[in-house]
Amino acid sequence: MIDLVEKALDAILPAEDAGPGQLSRSMRWAVMGGGKRIRPRICLLSACAAGGQAEDAVWSACAIEFLHSYTLVHDDLPAMDNDTERRGRASVWAKFGEAAAILAGDALQALAFTAAARSPRNATAIVAVLGRAATAVVEGQVADLAGIKDPEGVFERKTAALFAAAAEMGALSAEAPEPVAMRLRAYGRELGLAFQYQDDLLDAADGDFSSISVLGRDEVARRVASHTECALAALDGIPGDATPLADIAVDLGRRTF
Amino acid sequence: MIDLVEKALDAILPAEDAGPGQLSRSMRWAVMGGGKRIRPRICLLSACAAGGQAEDAVWSACAIEFLHSYTLVHDDLPAMDNDTERRGRASVWAKFGEAAAILAGDALQALAFTAAARSPRNATAIVAVLGRAATAVVEGQVADLAGIKDPEGVFERKTAALFAAAAEMGALSAEAPEPVAMRLRAYGRELGLAFQYQDDLLDAADGDFSSISVLGRDEVARRVASHTECALAALDGIPGDATPLADIAVDLGRRTF
Repeated sequence: MIDLVEKALDAILPAEDAGPGQLSRSMRWAVMGGGKRIRPRICLLSACAAGGQAEDAVWSACAIEFLHSYTLVHDDLPAMDNDTERRGRASVWAKFGEAAAILAGDALQALAFTAAARSPRNATAIVAVLGRAATAVVEGQVADLAGIKDPEGVFERKTAALFAAAAEMGALSAEAPEPVAMRLRAYGRELGLAFQYQDDLLDAADGDFSSISVLGRDEVARRVASHTECALAALDGIPGDATPLADIAVDLGRRTF
Repeated sequence: MIDLVEKALDAILPAEDAGPGQLSRSMRWAVMGGGKRIRPRICLLSACAAGGQAEDAVWSACAIEFLHSYTLVHDDLPAMDNDTERRGRASVWAKFGEAAAILAGDALQALAFTAAARSPRNATAIVAVLGRAATAVVEGQVADLAGIKDPEGVFERKTAALFAAAAEMGALSAEAPEPVAMRLRAYGRELGLAFQYQDDLLDAADGDFSSISVLGRDEVARRVASHTECALAALDGIPGDATPLADIAVDLGRRTF
């Protein structure tokens, strides 16, 4: 399934030498530098869980990953988190310069919506879901930078919104009925919250803010467990095979990376 | 018609005090600070010229203006053109800070696609047209920053792509048949090229690059006239009332502001 995602991302991105300057190279640097592809996997697996095929959701899966990648490129900028490294190599701005990184992020957001619009089914609804998530992610970053000490509110926007959108877009790609799409969306949301609290436990979160400083380590661990449980509960009554989604939730709750 | 645009922009933008931090305020600062609204006007008038109503194209018109506004916000950043003023007042980064401006631009691009997806007809095609234009605009800025001395190539992407999209999205909103949509797109493209060359004649262009330094003032003036003529020619055979579009082309060719 990761192969399907990697190939599609590679095929949709402009060729290395396409376009002016270093634009394509910087976009590829941002997207093709590894990463666990959790969001696109959730998207494809949600299409399967809704009774469709993974292939139905490839455009949505890539759209989600492009959107996620753009937010990382912009979050790393000197004016934001000022990170020179990402996934063990130079961040986009550290390698290509600040202006290039702003523009690479901008182009990746455009590509995300362009990809979503190419979904063979429910394209308009899928674009709308992506749009809401894209707005929420920016709101989350604004709240984060403003130093708002409300972990759940920030995580809801910075992380859970995109996980929820990934699952819902997968479901919509498979033409899932509304209640199924909403359950999968709820699964994605809960998983995103568990994932982000877990990040803090592993001290892997970007930026300075950690939910541990507000809630304490025990409460954060408790929230990882409870959001994981809620994610699993949301999968009850899903018509297709939801086992891989359940496995992701269990693995994320246990991860140490 | 401008009233229709202003009201719709105001209604679609989040309320001043909505969301975290200063996000809504900075988005509104970027969009509601005046501007001639040429692109949304072209969009609405193209819907009319295609035999539809201006109201059909309001979502598209706002989408185009949000996209245009986001590109101005990012172009003004210190890492790009480093402009502290825009439309006679502080640019977004000068007023709200660099991080806030990056995020306001990001949110406006998301809002552009969200608005386009709400078009009551042909939404998917409209999002696709907007996506191509959004990519082209970034490519144009990359080429501009790279100092590429090819005015037509840069103007094609930086300006004409968005004017062309505005006209085509208006036509699609009115369910124009393909040949009509393509003629209106051609009108928008030619108008955009004339507009950008005219900017250089008026010394109003952003950034350091002027087509005059490559082509000379006479050749630039000649191109304003020839692209204006081509814009007018593209309106031949349009089924609805194309007079206002023709007037815009003539006025732009003569403008001194």
